[in-house]
Amino acid sequence: MQKQKNSQIRKPENRKKNNSHSTNLPSTHSSSYYYQCSTCQKKFAPDFIEDNDHYICPDCNSKNKKGMPLKGVLQIFYDYGKLKQKYSQELISKITPGNIFAFSDLLPLKKKVPEIFQNLTLPANSLKKIPYAGSKNLFVLDETHNPTFSYKDRASVLVAAKAMELGKDTICAASTGNAASSMSGICATVGLKAKIFVPSTIPPEKLIQIKIYGADVKKIDGDYDKAFDMAIEASHENGWYNRNTAFNPLTVEGKKSAAYDVYLQNEGKMPDKVFIPVGDGVIISGIYKGFYDLLKLELIDKIPQLIAVQSENSSAIIDYLESNKFSLKNASTLADSISVNAPRNLYLAAESIKKSKGFGIKVSDNKILQAEKYLGREQGLFVEPAAAAAWAGYAKYISQNKRPDEKIVVLLTGCGLKDAKNARKIIEEIQ
Amino acid sequence: MQKQKNSQIRKPENRKKNNSHSTNLPSTHSSSYYYQCSTCQKKFAPDFIEDNDHYICPDCNSKNKKGMPLKGVLQIFYDYGKLKQKYSQELISKITPGNIFAFSDLLPLKKKVPEIFQNLTLPANSLKKIPYAGSKNLFVLDETHNPTFSYKDRASVLVAAKAMELGKDTICAASTGNAASSMSGICATVGLKAKIFVPSTIPPEKLIQIKIYGADVKKIDGDYDKAFDMAIEASHENGWYNRNTAFNPLTVEGKKSAAYDVYLQNEGKMPDKVFIPVGDGVIISGIYKGFYDLLKLELIDKIPQLIAVQSENSSAIIDYLESNKFSLKNASTLADSISVNAPRNLYLAAESIKKSKGFGIKVSDNKILQAEKYLGREQGLFVEPAAAAAWAGYAKYISQNKRPDEKIVVLLTGCGLKDAKNARKIIEEIQ
Repeated sequence: MQKQKNSQIRKPENRKKNNSHSTNLPSTHSSSYYYQCSTCQKKFAPDFIEDNDHYICPDCNSKNKKGMPLKGVLQIFYDYGKLKQKYSQELISKITPGNIFAFSDLLPLKKKVPEIFQNLTLPANSLKKIPYAGSKNLFVLDETHNPTFSYKDRASVLVAAKAMELGKDTICAASTGNAASSMSGICATVGLKAKIFVPSTIPPEKLIQIKIYGADVKKIDGDYDKAFDMAIEASHENGWYNRNTAFNPLTVEGKKSAAYDVYLQNEGKMPDKVFIPVGDGVIISGIYKGFYDLLKLELIDKIPQLIAVQSENSSAIIDYLESNKFSLKNASTLADSISVNAPRNLYLAAESIKKSKGFGIKVSDNKILQAEKYLGREQGLFVEPAAAAAWAGYAKYISQNKRPDEKIVVLLTGCGLKDAKNARKIIEEIQ
Repeated sequence: MQKQKNSQIRKPENRKKNNSHSTNLPSTHSSSYYYQCSTCQKKFAPDFIEDNDHYICPDCNSKNKKGMPLKGVLQIFYDYGKLKQKYSQELISKITPGNIFAFSDLLPLKKKVPEIFQNLTLPANSLKKIPYAGSKNLFVLDETHNPTFSYKDRASVLVAAKAMELGKDTICAASTGNAASSMSGICATVGLKAKIFVPSTIPPEKLIQIKIYGADVKKIDGDYDKAFDMAIEASHENGWYNRNTAFNPLTVEGKKSAAYDVYLQNEGKMPDKVFIPVGDGVIISGIYKGFYDLLKLELIDKIPQLIAVQSENSSAIIDYLESNKFSLKNASTLADSISVNAPRNLYLAAESIKKSKGFGIKVSDNKILQAEKYLGREQGLFVEPAAAAAWAGYAKYISQNKRPDEKIVVLLTGCGLKDAKNARKIIEEIQ
């Protein structure tokens, strides 16, 4: 880079901490972490899991059946006692929201990520206070402006970093659409190959996005659950790194960063409730994990209540919460991102909701479309149906519970441009 | 908001300057500015222009003809001598990129903007260094993650602030698509009404987006140039504030903020060249104006060369640069955002290019699609054709001029999800 020599020229040199190209963030290279099975609680060293191509607890994996919720999902933990000293106010004051690699000791990585990952920073201003009659302290966490326009980037970026660390050149994923378009875009950014399995019901815009990013995509004759199993098989056969959500423990771990962003963007003031759209249960488990980390670091004193919002037509996790039983039903909601027969992360998601003292809310597809319409017309937020579901859940809650002072965050997971079909449905109804 | 009382809980209180909810930015309330005609050079006080519903120089406006480039476009200037003292390194170190209202004394506003405008902050990390064989110092300015996913938000946000200041409740705009979807989204966010005139060729995704934001939209039987004149007439008749690009001087003034962001995000190191997709000439004039402000404040010592990239099938500004004559031709490029018969801001755009010692580059529609394909597959950037045009122009330039050390910024103006039709064309060709 050319140095400017004119001494009159004043450069904004002191503002490094605001800058995405900043170098004064803690470097990611030697975090101390371990894996723990969420079913049998056994602990594993990183090398054992990562070098042996394990994703699920090797002891519990034999109990798993195709197309069913997963037993033995691994969680990742750190030496919180030691980190508590390090994560002082002074350090935190240097952390910019949206930088997934900023809390570097709280990531399961052994090496510093390549510089190109700086281009995958998320917006630092995603927490937005919005006006609404029922609430004085209402925020949305707007994830529609992420690198590939959905929440899934939080997981994809971490998975890509791990794949590179492991020397893998290809990542394979099954997806209803967003995880695949996310993984494809992130792979294209950092120079990895993507192999994608999607159900035939995928919205055309998401398929276009996946292909624009140059991924090799297989549209299968079947649903998401079938695509899920096919992607695992293909990964094993070909030595690809697998990004199936819940299956790969880094998906939950990557998605936790939204909790950090809520904390950072709101000066440490925690919400009472977070409304989260729930499909396979990975996002809600990730957000729980992020708040759990902050609690263990003594940066917060309690975890907000996590409210799981599901479509009436795809409500396996809420049904399990109510009955403590899982029964396989055909999901059929128009909110494709949360249309799941067998939520792979059922058990961890249910545990996260319970531990946070949260609960579930079911909404109809009609209410989801109404919420998408409301957010667009009244708030200038163009979201996809899954994100609108979270709003529909919040609207249902607040109409039944007059709690104007509660501090609430509604998670808006994906951009409406990704699903023109449903947006068109709303417009036609409007006219 | 509930105060946390546990003294053990450490809040990141020192990090206000990183925060979009920050209150220590200079407040916007008493900037001193004037309007000046770019044709006759006459100066006007803000009250005279704004209170009398003038947009164009009242003395030159009579020379204007329907459907032709505009004479008498007004520019906005400030007391740079005074501001030079104020815009010290210390002040600049507090400014977060992406905050359009941060350089508050350099905006034509009389009042502080309402708090809701904080939700319209742009990403702070839009300047991304990317790898490319021909250039060691290549950056894109990625505007695809703006509030409504295009560059146009920079103008719409400022126009909305002015409309509110003037007590107008409705904004009217003509647009090929992005300016309208932007204005509609911004209006929905801040609580204004939007009246939109669009040509029949608008991509369906952009029309859906405009309607989702609740705007009242009229698809006219004709092209952009006709929509332009109809929007002005309707505004006059109904007392609406008009956001027609070039016509309203705040469109150029709003679009200048990208130059500030290049400066802020790269620690004051200026690029040698900026490649800009050009349709009606407002973006390139805005970027020139931003660098001009920085030059007058002695924050930079020269204005980068501005390179105007146009489609071979819509190249009125480059043709004018070469011949010093304007002749009306039918534009027909697939890059809808830069498809313009009569660039309304022709004269100011040409002057901006010349003063910056820049030049024009024409690219074919085929090269535009190839560029969109390249950016998606190799860089993970899903852009619309107009943005891809800027890349095609850069690629043409660098293949003909071996200048690996030149510092270059390529402006990517809009998100590819806004134009599925052309993206599909690329994919079908790929398979």
